[in-house]
Amino acid sequence: MPHLDFWYDFASPYSYPAAMWIADDAARLGVEVRWRPFVLGPIFARKGLTTSPMVADPVKGAYAWRDLARICARLGLPFREPPGFPQNGVLTSRVALVLDEAARPVFSRAVYGAQFGEGAVISEEEVIAGVLTTLGHDADAVMTAALDAANKPLLRGQTQAAEAAGLFGAPSFIADDGELFWGHDRLADALAWAAGERLPQRGS
Amino acid sequence: MPHLDFWYDFASPYSYPAAMWIADDAARLGVEVRWRPFVLGPIFARKGLTTSPMVADPVKGAYAWRDLARICARLGLPFREPPGFPQNGVLTSRVALVLDEAARPVFSRAVYGAQFGEGAVISEEEVIAGVLTTLGHDADAVMTAALDAANKPLLRGQTQAAEAAGLFGAPSFIADDGELFWGHDRLADALAWAAGERLPQRGS
Repeated sequence: MPHLDFWYDFASPYSYPAAMWIADDAARLGVEVRWRPFVLGPIFARKGLTTSPMVADPVKGAYAWRDLARICARLGLPFREPPGFPQNGVLTSRVALVLDEAARPVFSRAVYGAQFGEGAVISEEEVIAGVLTTLGHDADAVMTAALDAANKPLLRGQTQAAEAAGLFGAPSFIADDGELFWGHDRLADALAWAAGERLPQRGS
Repeated sequence: MPHLDFWYDFASPYSYPAAMWIADDAARLGVEVRWRPFVLGPIFARKGLTTSPMVADPVKGAYAWRDLARICARLGLPFREPPGFPQNGVLTSRVALVLDEAARPVFSRAVYGAQFGEGAVISEEEVIAGVLTTLGHDADAVMTAALDAANKPLLRGQTQAAEAAGLFGAPSFIADDGELFWGHDRLADALAWAAGERLPQRGS
Protein backbone atom coordinates (compact mmCIF):
# COMPACT_ATOMS: atom_id res chain seq x y z
CA MET A 1 0.00 0.00 0.00
CA PRO A 2 1.44 3.42 -0.90
CA HIS A 3 2.07 5.93 1.88
CA LEU A 4 1.74 9.64 2.30
CA ASP A 5 3.58 11.35 5.12
CA PHE A 6 1.34 14.05 6.58
CA TRP A 7 3.47 16.67 8.32
CA TYR A 8 1.47 18.97 10.55
CA ASP A 9 2.07 21.65 13.17
CA PHE A 10 -0.61 21.95 15.83
CA ALA A 11 -0.45 25.75 15.63
CA SER A 12 -0.96 25.75 11.86
CA PRO A 13 -4.45 26.88 10.85
CA TYR A 14 -4.40 25.28 7.41
CA SER A 15 -3.38 21.97 8.98
CA TYR A 16 -6.82 21.91 10.62
CA PRO A 17 -8.94 21.22 7.51
CA ALA A 18 -6.23 18.88 6.20
CA ALA A 19 -6.28 16.86 9.42
CA MET A 20 -10.06 16.63 9.37
CA TRP A 21 -10.27 15.25 5.82
CA ILE A 22 -7.07 13.41 4.97
CA ALA A 23 -8.10 10.06 6.43
CA ASP A 24 -11.35 9.76 4.46
CA ASP A 25 -9.73 10.87 1.22
CA ALA A 26 -6.75 8.56 1.70
CA ALA A 27 -8.94 5.55 2.46
CA ARG A 28 -10.89 6.12 -0.75
CA LEU A 29 -7.65 6.10 -2.76
CA GLY A 30 -6.01 3.24 -0.89
CA VAL A 31 -3.20 5.39 0.53
CA GLU A 32 -1.85 4.86 4.04
CA VAL A 33 -1.28 8.14 5.87
CA ARG A 34 1.58 8.49 8.35
CA TRP A 35 0.78 11.26 10.83
CA ARG A 36 3.96 13.21 11.56
CA PRO A 37 3.58 16.14 13.96
CA PHE A 38 6.43 18.65 14.09
CA VAL A 39 6.94 22.26 15.12
CA LEU A 40 7.72 24.97 12.60
CA GLY A 41 9.09 27.41 15.18
CA PRO A 42 12.70 26.20 15.13
CA ILE A 43 12.68 26.04 11.31
CA PHE A 44 11.35 29.61 11.11
CA ALA A 45 13.87 30.71 13.75
CA ARG A 46 16.83 29.43 11.75
CA LYS A 47 15.65 31.70 8.91
CA GLY A 48 15.51 34.66 11.26
CA LEU A 49 11.71 34.60 11.48
CA THR A 50 10.42 35.18 14.98
CA THR A 51 6.75 34.42 14.35
CA SER A 52 4.26 33.11 11.83
CA PRO A 53 4.15 34.88 8.45
CA MET A 54 0.46 35.44 9.26
CA VAL A 55 1.51 37.63 12.18
CA ALA A 56 4.55 39.22 10.56
CA ASP A 57 2.32 40.52 7.74
CA PRO A 58 -1.02 41.53 9.28
CA VAL A 59 -2.62 42.23 5.89
CA LYS A 60 -1.78 38.73 4.72
CA GLY A 61 -2.83 37.36 8.12
CA ALA A 62 -6.26 38.96 7.95
CA TYR A 63 -6.73 37.50 4.50
CA ALA A 64 -5.66 34.03 5.67
CA TRP A 65 -8.26 33.97 8.46
CA ARG A 66 -10.96 34.93 5.98
CA ASP A 67 -9.70 32.32 3.53
CA LEU A 68 -9.72 29.69 6.26
CA ALA A 69 -13.27 30.62 7.28
CA ARG A 70 -14.38 30.10 3.67
CA ILE A 71 -12.60 26.74 3.49
CA CYS A 72 -14.13 25.53 6.75
CA ALA A 73 -17.61 26.69 5.72
CA ARG A 74 -17.30 24.66 2.57
CA LEU A 75 -16.06 21.58 4.41
CA GLY A 76 -18.75 21.87 7.05
CA LEU A 77 -16.17 22.43 9.80
CA PRO A 78 -16.80 24.80 12.71
CA PHE A 79 -14.31 27.64 12.76
CA ARG A 80 -13.33 30.44 15.06
CA GLU A 81 -10.13 32.39 15.28
CA PRO A 82 -8.23 30.96 18.26
CA PRO A 83 -7.38 33.12 21.27
CA GLY A 84 -3.79 34.03 20.60
CA PHE A 85 -1.94 33.01 17.48
CA PRO A 86 0.26 31.20 16.92
CA GLN A 87 -0.33 28.95 19.91
CA ASN A 88 2.49 26.89 21.36
CA GLY A 89 2.03 23.37 20.04
CA VAL A 90 5.00 21.72 21.75
CA LEU A 91 3.00 20.05 24.54
CA THR A 92 0.39 18.71 22.14
CA SER A 93 3.06 17.47 19.75
CA ARG A 94 4.82 15.60 22.53
CA VAL A 95 1.55 13.98 23.56
CA ALA A 96 0.78 13.02 19.96
CA LEU A 97 4.17 11.36 19.64
CA VAL A 98 3.69 9.08 22.65
CA LEU A 99 0.34 7.86 21.33
CA ASP A 100 0.40 4.94 18.94
CA GLU A 101 -0.22 5.21 15.21
CA ALA A 102 -3.91 4.42 15.61
CA ALA A 103 -4.61 6.85 18.44
CA ARG A 104 -2.55 9.74 17.05
CA PRO A 105 -4.93 10.78 14.23
CA VAL A 106 -7.97 10.71 16.53
CA PHE A 107 -6.17 12.78 19.16
CA SER A 108 -4.82 15.21 16.57
CA ARG A 109 -8.22 15.83 15.04
CA ALA A 110 -9.69 16.41 18.49
CA VAL A 111 -7.01 18.99 19.32
CA TYR A 112 -7.50 20.80 16.02
CA GLY A 113 -11.25 20.84 16.56
CA ALA A 114 -10.83 22.20 20.09
CA GLN A 115 -8.44 24.93 18.94
CA PHE A 116 -9.92 26.13 15.66
CA GLY A 117 -13.50 25.00 16.15
CA GLU A 118 -14.01 25.96 19.80
CA GLY A 119 -11.21 28.41 20.61
CA ALA A 120 -9.35 26.26 23.16
CA VAL A 121 -5.81 27.09 24.30
CA ILE A 122 -3.82 23.98 23.48
CA SER A 123 -0.71 24.93 25.42
CA GLU A 124 -2.65 24.36 28.66
CA GLU A 125 -2.12 20.94 30.24
CA GLU A 126 -5.73 20.77 31.49
CA VAL A 127 -7.03 21.29 27.96
CA ILE A 128 -4.93 18.49 26.52
CA ALA A 129 -5.65 16.22 29.48
CA GLY A 130 -9.35 16.88 28.93
CA VAL A 131 -9.08 15.86 25.28
CA LEU A 132 -7.26 12.67 26.27
CA THR A 133 -9.90 11.80 28.88
CA THR A 134 -12.73 12.40 26.44
CA LEU A 135 -11.05 10.00 24.02
CA GLY A 136 -10.81 7.30 26.68
CA HIS A 137 -7.10 7.57 27.45
CA ASP A 138 -5.56 7.51 30.91
CA ALA A 139 -4.74 11.21 30.79
CA ASP A 140 -2.37 11.17 33.75
CA ALA A 141 -0.32 8.32 32.34
CA VAL A 142 -0.14 9.81 28.85
CA MET A 143 0.76 13.28 30.12
CA THR A 144 3.47 11.87 32.36
CA ALA A 145 4.98 9.95 29.47
CA ALA A 146 4.72 12.98 27.16
CA LEU A 147 6.38 15.34 29.63
CA ASP A 148 9.13 12.90 30.55
CA ALA A 149 12.54 14.22 29.56
CA ALA A 150 13.17 10.97 27.72
CA ASN A 151 10.42 11.94 25.24
CA LYS A 152 11.93 15.30 24.36
CA PRO A 153 14.29 14.05 21.63
CA LEU A 154 11.34 12.48 19.78
CA LEU A 155 9.82 15.82 18.80
CA ARG A 156 13.23 17.34 18.15
CA GLY A 157 14.00 14.44 15.82
CA GLN A 158 10.72 14.91 13.97
CA THR A 159 11.41 18.57 13.44
CA GLN A 160 14.97 17.89 12.28
CA ALA A 161 13.61 15.30 9.85
CA ALA A 162 11.06 17.84 8.60
CA GLU A 163 13.75 20.41 7.96
CA ALA A 164 16.00 17.84 6.28
CA ALA A 165 13.09 16.94 4.00
CA GLY A 166 12.88 20.57 2.87
CA LEU A 167 9.72 21.51 4.77
CA PHE A 168 9.10 25.22 5.23
CA GLY A 169 5.41 25.27 6.12
CA ALA A 170 2.48 23.15 7.22
CA PRO A 171 0.63 21.13 6.32
CA SER A 172 3.06 19.36 4.01
CA PHE A 173 2.75 15.99 2.34
CA ILE A 174 5.51 13.71 1.06
CA ALA A 175 4.90 10.68 -1.14
CA ASP A 176 7.00 7.50 -1.14
CA ASP A 177 9.08 8.82 -4.05
CA GLY A 178 9.90 12.00 -2.12
CA GLU A 179 7.53 14.30 -4.01
CA LEU A 180 6.60 17.21 -1.73
CA PHE A 181 3.31 19.09 -1.64
CA TRP A 182 2.71 22.09 0.60
CA GLY A 183 -0.60 23.44 1.79
CA HIS A 184 -4.11 22.22 2.45
CA ASP A 185 -4.96 23.16 -1.13
CA ARG A 186 -2.48 20.54 -2.40
CA LEU A 187 -3.91 17.66 -0.36
CA ALA A 188 -5.94 16.16 -3.21
CA ASP A 189 -2.94 16.36 -5.55
CA ALA A 190 -0.65 14.80 -2.95
CA LEU A 191 -3.01 11.87 -2.40
CA ALA A 192 -3.45 11.35 -6.14
CA TRP A 193 0.32 11.40 -6.58
CA ALA A 194 0.83 8.93 -3.73
CA ALA A 195 -1.80 6.63 -5.25
CA GLY A 196 0.13 6.66 -8.52
CA GLU A 197 -2.55 8.52 -10.41
CA ARG A 198 -1.59 11.09 -12.95
CA LEU A 199 -2.79 14.46 -11.72
CA PRO A 200 -6.12 15.33 -13.31
CA GLN A 201 -5.59 16.95 -16.69
CA ARG A 202 -7.26 20.15 -17.66
CA GLY A 203 -8.61 21.10 -21.06
CA SER A 204 -8.35 19.00 -24.21
CA MET B 1 -22.92 40.87 -15.83
CA PRO B 2 -20.84 40.32 -12.68
CA HIS B 3 -17.17 41.30 -12.74
CA LEU B 4 -13.98 39.88 -11.35
CA ASP B 5 -10.94 42.11 -11.08
CA PHE B 6 -7.86 40.09 -12.00
CA TRP B 7 -4.79 41.66 -10.43
CA TYR B 8 -1.53 40.37 -11.87
CA ASP B 9 2.16 41.15 -11.75
CA PHE B 10 4.10 40.25 -14.88
CA ALA B 11 6.98 38.89 -12.77
CA SER B 12 4.65 36.60 -10.79
CA PRO B 13 5.00 32.94 -11.78
CA TYR B 14 1.60 31.85 -10.45
CA SER B 15 -0.03 34.67 -12.42
CA TYR B 16 1.02 32.80 -15.58
CA PRO B 17 -1.40 29.84 -15.33
CA ALA B 18 -4.11 32.18 -14.04
CA ALA B 19 -3.71 34.48 -17.03
CA MET B 20 -3.82 31.56 -19.45
CA TRP B 21 -7.08 30.14 -18.12
CA ILE B 22 -9.13 32.90 -16.54
CA ALA B 23 -10.85 34.05 -19.75
CA ASP B 24 -12.22 30.63 -20.70
CA ASP B 25 -13.41 29.89 -17.18
CA ALA B 26 -15.00 33.32 -16.79
CA ALA B 27 -16.84 33.08 -20.09
CA ARG B 28 -18.32 29.75 -19.07
CA LEU B 29 -19.66 31.29 -15.85
CA GLY B 30 -20.79 34.57 -17.39
CA VAL B 31 -18.28 36.67 -15.45
CA GLU B 32 -16.57 39.68 -17.02
CA VAL B 33 -12.88 39.85 -16.13
CA ARG B 34 -11.14 43.19 -15.70
CA TRP B 35 -7.40 42.78 -16.30
CA ARG B 36 -5.50 44.93 -13.83
CA PRO B 37 -1.71 44.75 -14.06
CA PHE B 38 0.27 46.14 -11.13
CA VAL B 39 3.73 45.73 -9.63
CA LEU B 40 4.27 44.09 -6.27
CA GLY B 41 7.76 45.55 -5.77
CA PRO B 42 6.67 48.82 -4.10
CA ILE B 43 4.18 46.95 -1.88
CA PHE B 44 6.90 44.51 -0.80
CA ALA B 45 9.32 47.39 -0.28
CA ARG B 46 7.00 49.18 2.12
CA LYS B 47 7.06 46.02 4.24
CA GLY B 48 10.84 46.00 4.20
CA LEU B 49 11.03 43.15 1.68
CA THR B 50 13.70 43.65 -0.95
CA THR B 51 12.80 40.76 -3.21
CA SER B 52 10.27 38.01 -3.88
CA PRO B 53 9.56 35.59 -1.01
CA MET B 54 10.62 32.88 -3.49
CA VAL B 55 14.13 34.37 -3.54
CA ALA B 56 14.28 35.36 0.13
CA ASP B 57 13.59 31.74 1.09
CA PRO B 58 15.46 29.51 -1.40
CA VAL B 59 13.95 26.30 0.02
CA LYS B 60 10.44 27.66 -0.50
CA GLY B 61 11.50 29.04 -3.89
CA ALA B 62 12.74 25.67 -5.12
CA TYR B 63 9.47 24.11 -4.03
CA ALA B 64 7.45 26.79 -5.82
CA TRP B 65 9.19 26.18 -9.14
CA ARG B 66 8.50 22.46 -8.83
CA ASP B 67 4.88 23.18 -7.86
CA LEU B 68 4.50 25.49 -10.84
CA ALA B 69 5.96 22.89 -13.19
CA ARG B 70 3.35 20.40 -11.94
CA ILE B 71 0.54 22.93 -12.43
CA CYS B 72 1.66 23.80 -15.95
CA ALA B 73 2.01 20.13 -16.89
CA ARG B 74 -1.54 19.55 -15.78
CA LEU B 75 -2.85 22.57 -17.69
CA GLY B 76 -0.90 21.66 -20.80
CA LEU B 77 1.17 24.84 -20.59
CA PRO B 78 4.83 24.94 -21.58
CA PHE B 79 7.04 25.88 -18.65
CA ARG B 80 10.63 26.78 -18.06
CA GLU B 81 12.19 28.67 -15.23
CA PRO B 82 12.87 32.16 -16.59
CA PRO B 83 16.43 33.54 -16.80
CA GLY B 84 16.62 35.72 -13.72
CA PHE B 85 13.84 35.98 -11.20
CA PRO B 86 12.02 38.10 -10.38
CA GLN B 87 12.12 39.93 -13.70
CA ASN B 88 11.33 43.62 -13.85
CA GLY B 89 7.76 43.92 -15.08
CA VAL B 90 7.45 47.70 -15.12
CA LEU B 91 7.93 48.14 -18.88
CA THR B 92 5.45 45.38 -19.70
CA SER B 93 2.91 46.74 -17.23
CA ARG B 94 3.14 50.19 -18.76
CA VAL B 95 2.58 48.73 -22.22
CA ALA B 96 -0.37 46.68 -20.99
CA LEU B 97 -1.97 49.79 -19.54
CA VAL B 98 -1.89 51.76 -22.79
CA LEU B 99 -3.57 48.92 -24.66
CA ASP B 100 -7.35 48.85 -24.64
CA GLU B 101 -9.43 46.39 -22.61
CA ALA B 102 -9.72 43.98 -25.55
CA ALA B 103 -6.02 43.96 -26.47
CA ARG B 104 -4.66 43.82 -22.92
CA PRO B 105 -5.51 40.16 -22.15
CA VAL B 106 -4.10 38.95 -25.46
CA PHE B 107 -0.88 40.91 -24.92
CA SER B 108 -0.61 39.79 -21.30
CA ARG B 109 -0.99 36.13 -22.16
CA ALA B 110 1.64 36.48 -24.88
CA VAL B 111 4.11 38.06 -22.45
CA TYR B 112 3.51 35.36 -19.82
CA GLY B 113 3.96 32.68 -22.46
CA ALA B 114 7.20 34.26 -23.65
CA GLN B 115 8.59 34.58 -20.11
CA PHE B 116 7.52 31.33 -18.46
CA GLY B 117 7.03 29.17 -21.55
CA GLU B 118 10.07 30.23 -23.58
CA GLY B 119 12.41 31.94 -21.12
CA ALA B 120 12.27 35.46 -22.59
CA VAL B 121 13.52 38.50 -20.67
CA ILE B 122 10.51 40.80 -20.49
CA SER B 123 12.39 43.87 -19.28
CA GLU B 124 14.00 44.18 -22.72
CA GLU B 125 12.28 46.61 -25.06
CA GLU B 126 13.01 44.46 -28.13
CA VAL B 127 11.27 41.49 -26.54
CA ILE B 128 8.11 43.47 -25.78
CA ALA B 129 8.19 45.21 -29.15
CA GLY B 130 8.46 41.78 -30.76
CA VAL B 131 5.40 40.55 -28.90
CA LEU B 132 3.45 43.64 -29.98
CA THR B 133 4.46 43.19 -33.62
CA THR B 134 3.49 39.53 -33.58
CA LEU B 135 0.06 40.53 -32.27
CA GLY B 136 -0.42 43.04 -35.11
CA HIS B 137 0.17 46.23 -33.13
CA ASP B 138 2.23 49.18 -34.32
CA ALA B 139 5.03 48.41 -31.86
CA ASP B 140 6.79 51.79 -32.24
CA ALA B 141 3.61 53.73 -31.52
CA VAL B 142 2.63 51.57 -28.54
CA MET B 143 6.11 51.63 -27.02
CA THR B 144 6.33 55.41 -27.41
CA ALA B 145 2.99 55.85 -25.67
CA ALA B 146 3.95 53.38 -22.93
CA LEU B 147 7.28 55.05 -22.23
CA ASP B 148 5.85 58.57 -22.31
CA ALA B 149 6.19 60.28 -18.95
CA ALA B 150 2.47 61.04 -19.08
CA ASN B 151 1.78 57.30 -18.78
CA LYS B 152 3.84 56.80 -15.64
CA PRO B 153 1.09 57.75 -13.13
CA LEU B 154 -1.20 55.09 -14.62
CA LEU B 155 0.87 52.18 -13.29
CA ARG B 156 1.57 53.97 -10.04
CA GLY B 157 -2.17 54.48 -9.61
CA GLN B 158 -2.87 50.82 -10.27
CA THR B 159 -0.31 49.77 -7.69
CA GLN B 160 -1.69 52.21 -5.13
CA ALA B 161 -5.19 50.89 -5.78
CA ALA B 162 -3.90 47.34 -5.34
CA GLU B 163 -2.33 48.18 -1.99
CA ALA B 164 -5.46 50.04 -0.87
CA ALA B 165 -7.49 46.95 -1.73
CA GLY B 166 -5.34 44.91 0.63
CA LEU B 167 -3.34 43.03 -1.99
CA PHE B 168 -0.12 41.41 -0.82
CA GLY B 169 0.57 38.94 -3.62
CA ALA B 170 -0.34 37.94 -7.15
CA PRO B 171 -2.46 36.79 -8.75
CA SER B 172 -5.32 38.21 -6.73
CA PHE B 173 -9.00 38.37 -7.59
CA ILE B 174 -11.65 40.74 -6.24
CA ALA B 175 -15.37 40.28 -6.79
CA ASP B 176 -17.94 43.09 -7.07
CA ASP B 177 -18.74 42.78 -3.36
CA GLY B 178 -15.08 43.23 -2.45
CA GLU B 179 -14.38 39.58 -1.63
CA LEU B 180 -10.66 38.91 -2.12
CA PHE B 181 -9.05 35.69 -3.27
CA TRP B 182 -5.29 35.22 -3.52
CA GLY B 183 -3.40 32.73 -5.63
CA HIS B 184 -3.86 30.74 -8.79
CA ASP B 185 -5.32 27.94 -6.68
CA ARG B 186 -8.22 30.21 -5.67
CA LEU B 187 -9.18 31.16 -9.25
CA ALA B 188 -12.07 28.70 -9.51
CA ASP B 189 -13.44 29.82 -6.13
CA ALA B 190 -13.13 33.49 -7.07
CA LEU B 191 -15.02 32.99 -10.32
CA ALA B 192 -17.73 30.97 -8.60
CA TRP B 193 -18.07 33.68 -5.96
CA ALA B 194 -18.26 36.41 -8.61
CA ALA B 195 -20.93 34.44 -10.46
CA GLY B 196 -22.99 34.31 -7.26
CA GLU B 197 -22.62 30.57 -6.86
CA ARG B 198 -22.19 29.12 -3.43
CA LEU B 199 -18.76 27.57 -3.23
CA PRO B 200 -18.96 23.85 -3.88
CA GLN B 201 -19.78 21.99 -0.69
CA ARG B 202 -17.83 19.02 0.47
CA GLY B 203 -19.16 15.91 2.13
CA SER B 204 -22.77 15.23 3.02
